Amino acid sequence: MILSSTFKGEIMFLPRKVLEEKLNRMLAEDLGLGDVTSNLIVPEHCNAEAEIIAKEEGVAAGIEEATVLLESLGLNFETYVKDGDEVKPKQVLVKISGDARTILSVERTLLNIVSRMSGIATATRKLVEKIRKAGYKTRVACTRKTAPGLLYFDKKAVSIGGGDPHRLHLDDMVLIKDNHIAIIGSVEKAVRTAKGKVSFSKKVEVEVSNVNDVLVAAKAGADIIMLDNFTPKQVEEAVKLLKKAGFFGKVLLEASGKITTDNAVEFAAEGVNIISLGGITHSVKALDMSLEIVKVKVQK
Amino acid sequence: MILSSTFKGEIMFLPRKVLEEKLNRMLAEDLGLGDVTSNLIVPEHCNAEAEIIAKEEGVAAGIEEATVLLESLGLNFETYVKDGDEVKPKQVLVKISGDARTILSVERTLLNIVSRMSGIATATRKLVEKIRKAGYKTRVACTRKTAPGLLYFDKKAVSIGGGDPHRLHLDDMVLIKDNHIAIIGSVEKAVRTAKGKVSFSKKVEVEVSNVNDVLVAAKAGADIIMLDNFTPKQVEEAVKLLKKAGFFGKVLLEASGKITTDNAVEFAAEGVNIISLGGITHSVKALDMSLEIVKVKVQK
Amino acid sequence: MILSSTFKGEIMFLPRKVLEEKLNRMLAEDLGLGDVTSNLIVPEHCNAEAEIIAKEEGVAAGIEEATVLLESLGLNFETYVKDGDEVKPKQVLVKISGDARTILSVERTLLNIVSRMSGIATATRKLVEKIRKAGYKTRVACTRKTAPGLLYFDKKAVSIGGGDPHRLHLDDMVLIKDNHIAIIGSVEKAVRTAKGKVSFSKKVEVEVSNVNDVLVAAKAGADIIMLDNFTPKQVEEAVKLLKKAGFFGKVLLEASGKITTDNAVEFAAEGVNIISLGGITHSVKALDMSLEIVKVKVQK
Amino acid sequence: MILSSTFKGEIMFLPRKVLEEKLNRMLAEDLGLGDVTSNLIVPEHCNAEAEIIAKEEGVAAGIEEATVLLESLGLNFETYVKDGDEVKPKQVLVKISGDARTILSVERTLLNIVSRMSGIATATRKLVEKIRKAGYKTRVACTRKTAPGLLYFDKKAVSIGGGDPHRLHLDDMVLIKDNHIAIIGSVEKAVRTAKGKVSFSKKVEVEVSNVNDVLVAAKAGADIIMLDNFTPKQVEEAVKLLKKAGFFGKVLLEASGKITTDNAVEFAAEGVNIISLGGITHSVKALDMSLEIVKVKVQK
Amino acid sequence: MILSSTFKGEIMFLPRKVLEEKLNRMLAEDLGLGDVTSNLIVPEHCNAEAEIIAKEEGVAAGIEEATVLLESLGLNFETYVKDGDEVKPKQVLVKISGDARTILSVERTLLNIVSRMSGIATATRKLVEKIRKAGYKTRVACTRKTAPGLLYFDKKAVSIGGGDPHRLHLDDMVLIKDNHIAIIGSVEKAVRTAKGKVSFSKKVEVEVSNVNDVLVAAKAGADIIMLDNFTPKQVEEAVKLLKKAGFFGKVLLEASGKITTDNAVEFAAEGVNIISLGGITHSVKALDMSLEIVKVKVQK
Amino acid sequence: MILSSTFKGEIMFLPRKVLEEKLNRMLAEDLGLGDVTSNLIVPEHCNAEAEIIAKEEGVAAGIEEATVLLESLGLNFETYVKDGDEVKPKQVLVKISGDARTILSVERTLLNIVSRMSGIATATRKLVEKIRKAGYKTRVACTRKTAPGLLYFDKKAVSIGGGDPHRLHLDDMVLIKDNHIAIIGSVEKAVRTAKGKVSFSKKVEVEVSNVNDVLVAAKAGADIIMLDNFTPKQVEEAVKLLKKAGFFGKVLLEASGKITTDNAVEFAAEGVNIISLGGITHSVKALDMSLEIVKVKVQK
Repeated sequence: MILSSTFKGEIMFLPRKVLEEKLNRMLAEDLGLGDVTSNLIVPEHCNAEAEIIAKEEGVAAGIEEATVLLESLGLNFETYVKDGDEVKPKQVLVKISGDARTILSVERTLLNIVSRMSGIATATRKLVEKIRKAGYKTRVACTRKTAPGLLYFDKKAVSIGGGDPHRLHLDDMVLIKDNHIAIIGSVEKAVRTAKGKVSFSKKVEVEVSNVNDVLVAAKAGADIIMLDNFTPKQVEEAVKLLKKAGFFGKVLLEASGKITTDNAVEFAAEGVNIISLGGITHSVKALDMSLEIVKVKVQK
Repeated sequence: MILSSTFKGEIMFLPRKVLEEKLNRMLAEDLGLGDVTSNLIVPEHCNAEAEIIAKEEGVAAGIEEATVLLESLGLNFETYVKDGDEVKPKQVLVKISGDARTILSVERTLLNIVSRMSGIATATRKLVEKIRKAGYKTRVACTRKTAPGLLYFDKKAVSIGGGDPHRLHLDDMVLIKDNHIAIIGSVEKAVRTAKGKVSFSKKVEVEVSNVNDVLVAAKAGADIIMLDNFTPKQVEEAVKLLKKAGFFGKVLLEASGKITTDNAVEFAAEGVNIISLGGITHSVKALDMSLEIVKVKVQK
Repeated sequence: MILSSTFKGEIMFLPRKVLEEKLNRMLAEDLGLGDVTSNLIVPEHCNAEAEIIAKEEGVAAGIEEATVLLESLGLNFETYVKDGDEVKPKQVLVKISGDARTILSVERTLLNIVSRMSGIATATRKLVEKIRKAGYKTRVACTRKTAPGLLYFDKKAVSIGGGDPHRLHLDDMVLIKDNHIAIIGSVEKAVRTAKGKVSFSKKVEVEVSNVNDVLVAAKAGADIIMLDNFTPKQVEEAVKLLKKAGFFGKVLLEASGKITTDNAVEFAAEGVNIISLGGITHSVKALDMSLEIVKVKVQK
Repeated sequence: MILSSTFKGEIMFLPRKVLEEKLNRMLAEDLGLGDVTSNLIVPEHCNAEAEIIAKEEGVAAGIEEATVLLESLGLNFETYVKDGDEVKPKQVLVKISGDARTILSVERTLLNIVSRMSGIATATRKLVEKIRKAGYKTRVACTRKTAPGLLYFDKKAVSIGGGDPHRLHLDDMVLIKDNHIAIIGSVEKAVRTAKGKVSFSKKVEVEVSNVNDVLVAAKAGADIIMLDNFTPKQVEEAVKLLKKAGFFGKVLLEASGKITTDNAVEFAAEGVNIISLGGITHSVKALDMSLEIVKVKVQK
Repeated sequence: MILSSTFKGEIMFLPRKVLEEKLNRMLAEDLGLGDVTSNLIVPEHCNAEAEIIAKEEGVAAGIEEATVLLESLGLNFETYVKDGDEVKPKQVLVKISGDARTILSVERTLLNIVSRMSGIATATRKLVEKIRKAGYKTRVACTRKTAPGLLYFDKKAVSIGGGDPHRLHLDDMVLIKDNHIAIIGSVEKAVRTAKGKVSFSKKVEVEVSNVNDVLVAAKAGADIIMLDNFTPKQVEEAVKLLKKAGFFGKVLLEASGKITTDNAVEFAAEGVNIISLGGITHSVKALDMSLEIVKVKVQK
Repeated sequence: MILSSTFKGEIMFLPRKVLEEKLNRMLAEDLGLGDVTSNLIVPEHCNAEAEIIAKEEGVAAGIEEATVLLESLGLNFETYVKDGDEVKPKQVLVKISGDARTILSVERTLLNIVSRMSGIATATRKLVEKIRKAGYKTRVACTRKTAPGLLYFDKKAVSIGGGDPHRLHLDDMVLIKDNHIAIIGSVEKAVRTAKGKVSFSKKVEVEVSNVNDVLVAAKAGADIIMLDNFTPKQVEEAVKLLKKAGFFGKVLLEASGKITTDNAVEFAAEGVNIISLGGITHSVKALDMSLEIVKVKVQK
């Protein structure tokens, strides 16, 4: 086993100030020239208390983002769950207090962040647990198929759900895909070229589309081999081949393409180290939640 | 009938230059300090031709965004579908040619945009057609429950699918929600206050949670009434009440909350003008598509 | 009467954090690489108290902006008037205390904001009162003819002065102007096309240049009709026509073009709901005010 | 005479690309999520020709800005006047052709820029000529009392009108004002301190409020002395004093404060080198102009 | 040997558009409100030809950046060297033609970029060749000790000089430094924790400060071990220990700290795979070059 | 003597908020999608104390920048030196406490800023003192040859070291260089043109390449003459010529080009007012320093 089995999800740390800027840009888009409703309806010096409440079961994520956004707007809050905690319907996630107009003008941006991230974390956790229950240590990874512009948030949510964020973006790993191979000519040439020119700081992964190329890739020195659109049967053959050639356990195997919650365990059973799914981040079901005003106090 | 039945989806026009800046920011996030793979594998003066190909049936959206992004990067392209066209599996949407490294470094950002927008347009179109087939003119609208930061893209995709983008953000309409009413005290006071202070340029919509408040809202002068979490039965009662009081056909009715593809027709049948669903934009299934390099030419 | 007569001016609400970013950008332009004078003259740990003082009579506006900017720079302040209050010559608007260099380096940006906004609010209030004194409820609105880039500030100042901000920018209302009609062919076609495709969330206004088109526009379903460059006489005819056809009181009438402080009452007298003037925001007379250091304390 | 009498107005050069970014930011604010009207009314592949037409007499300014903005949006144009030219009512300033939706969505931003800048240039030119006709070479300068955020545009417009832009912002000159003197204690100490610590690359100006301080400032080594709120009589005394002490013609004199178009010549007559007025930029009357569509062609 | 000996320097690919934005920001800072000199001296429609000329021997870098910046400003150019080429004194690197004011206003920004990057590439190449001449394949790497904000440019210049850019920033590799170990307690615990939680996509490097910890790190599973401030003698011992334990050739060794051009070969001789030096990027000697106008043509 | 001999270095004042934005942008580049190491190794609620420690002798600079950055990240700090103080090896400059992950993720950006600025200040101070010891009052100035994008930081560091920041960027002074003269034809025409059109607020400097042009420049009215690439001998001649013609002591003389620490005194000896060197900012030797964690406390 060349991958740790204690993996819980790697998270990228951003100081609150830096995260704040990303969140404020989201809020600014929603505000346009300003919230016209809150100003019409809510008195100027009105304080309110509000709660973010889960409306279905799942895994909380985006709680840190929520607190950073609230703090940057001068609102007070208390969190009742932390990222990664399981939540039940009607459970209060965060209590907020402060200027009522500000609370109402950030409500939707806040919920959009927390419910999307929680939806991603929930789906990831579900799949990870299914695989664990079936007795496998296989890692569940996402891809770069996120909502456009949301790489940080989508990848962080996968990590919170216990998944592997995989390559974060285009600068942190070499991943040679079918289109690269189409240009350079062969898996072997691609891997040898990359290994010959790459910084020592980076791993080299290559995507292969048939069983023979798995061995080619391993011999050429790939650190990770992505079995693209393989059937479980083909994975089995690839593993056999690698074992025979003495590469199994030395090179990481990632199964990718057409993997779903339903068939994921079959792939895990064949001995790949990682299963990756685009759907975890490109086809998200947001976790249902709402923000409710629970107390109001107009200041004189 | 106070809403046009010829509606095809209102779209917000952005000059290409302004759109380009939004798209470049998305690309920049994915690039980080740069694409390390393309540089290792692809020769410097290499030209390529590539195709964006649909892998499932649906409605194309994001094609304009794709062309703006490609043009801003100095790539050539020809489009084979336009936004709103139906696409079949294996259909080529866009042919691209130009610097191979640039094509490969924008591939994922491009696909993330087009496949998300197409997924939203597809789901919207499906629901609109279901309602039309059942014989109703009811409009399908989205909400502000989009992916955070993607208001423009998600709303435009809904429009392309034949839906109504609804309020675009917080500055273009007054929408008094439950939390506003919790603060000001009653539906009546909320509507009267808003109507008394609002710019003549804006409509006033109010969310009500019970049948009685529908009449209150209409009497207070609301332009649009949102029936929140009503059952079809409750909608029926509300309509009856409004007819009796002479408001039906003068105030717009929007049903919202717990509406799904399955039960949408039942709401349409009760005579509401608009059905709105958060799920169209917060729980998107991306339309599957890929980018394939089809020709390569290294320049000497 | 289809427009509320209790109107006091609708204001767009921006959380302080979001407003702060707009203000800081203004300050940064004035600073360039830094204030060279304050550093040369003012000792490093010098605290000062300063006052913003009105030098002529008018309506205060921009006070909120001033406090947001001061707070973001770490300066303390006490406000002696709030937005919309009338001020007299020599009246203190805001007292400021804190780091002297910071106060001096923000002085001009601060005054530029407050004096421009107050100038706009003052002119608006004056016109509104003139019309009220003449016994009319007609609303005074501005246009999008603001200083470039200052839409938010100029529109907010109009609201503070008791005016209607009108359409905020290009996304919050449909306003079909002469150039649109030149392209599509006729007022009727323009209005019918817009009504057929527009989101239910938006009003449709159309600009007409002759009395006949007023009726055409009303029949085609316009929510608001802009009488462009009409004489009071022509307005009278238009109103007569609409009354006869039963549209008066159902469609809003806005008089626009060549309206000045001098002739505004004549238009109001003819029964239009709104009078709009570009000059309120494109030809502003700033309200004279200054910032005076009143106390200095160098820290050891 | 220590100031050139051939002065025509110094202009700051910005490469078009850098100017483009400032202009695009203004446009983006006006667009919000997009122009909803143009999309509803104007067909997709519609080309139009349009003209920017002066509606009153004045001096053109902002023409360069207009061309940079039009070019960045992919529109074609021909200019019929250049910055600084005099224009008559009905004169065509710029002809534009290209995508009709784009033209209409930039119309207002374009006019706001050109009409404000032309208004400033016109007022400046008028005052400069009045002074020249009276036989004086005195320079007319503006201050930093511009519309907030428009330093570049307002100062450039003054230059186009033949005025002196004065200090551009806080980093390009030392200007010791009353508040600085209040902190450091005296004009003499202020000037000596500044001269002792300032970079050799910068001039030092000081504001004085009484005749005696003029001599103090000159002796302390000020390069320029601002006579703040002096009457013409007081200016006369100051000049006398300087002549007697041998400083006249060696230090520049700037009259500032309470100077208007009406009394400016009186100050010029007393021999100051520069007259500066805040009103040229803080209380602008925009030059009236409009954009008219003159031809339309829908592409098949 | 576990690191390729054909390494020539890995480069991060940025599409020209994305690079352009970084470069324009640098230019904008230098311009402030505009270049006052060029406008005073250079006529408006003046074209010029200019050359960037090396004034000393070295390795060219920043040529791509120069062309991107020139192109974005609408200037024409021809390049006579490409990144990585050796240049001699008086050699022309780039010929530029176009608007003279634009050329002069970008001159300094352009030279600052090219001369800094060339200086870095030159120093890197010199050290790489020294090591090659001594018969070693050891890689020369830089660190994150760049000029603040210039990570991309400094790292790219190192690559052009034949060096390894090492970790690009904080998200692309795990590098456990002394301060991390101070917090977690031991090298062993640090490496085990990281390996247990890290994404499969990333390598784990650890900094050790004594010979014993080298073996600890290797046993704990580190991919790369940084020998911090080791003497050549200590490196020798570490290698011996690793060989005995069977880890040599399986884990990468990086020598870092107090390595200079003078002693680098001694470290190479001991068998480390990588030598890294902060000084290559934090203490740069810019390569001397200038821009000369060679032809001028004023357009009528 | 026309330049003050009490000069200590002019500094541009930026309010902390404005400075913060520049610093946060630097930090954001280094973070990418986040610091993966700190998150893996450092517990979530871990507080640490750290020290920035000098490792060699020099002049501290960047201390203000460090405190602004630390404060913006919510970290506490105590400074033990202020900008301009001399520091010894092992001396603690700043003590920091707060969230350990945040400290570690800002460590490198912080050190990059402080060590570069201190390196510049140290070199400047050394040269200033050498000249003072030789008995001359000549000022040491830098140029615009900074690291690209670091104008503010590099110039401020020069000032802290006792140097003159010279022209800050392209908008604060007229500096006619060889290329400008190549275009306009002669030194005389260049100076006369500039003096005739320049704002009264700015000085005019001209670069001359031979002794005769020095007199030409002085007669034409230049405020400052830059003797470019003159030998000390040529400077001597120029001074003689100016004395004879009565200009010496009335026009400032700046020697520039090929001046080094070694020969600077020779130039000073010839009576120039200013010596400027590009190398102070384009070829910086960073001052060695490090950040050490000295205490750790994990919160329960």
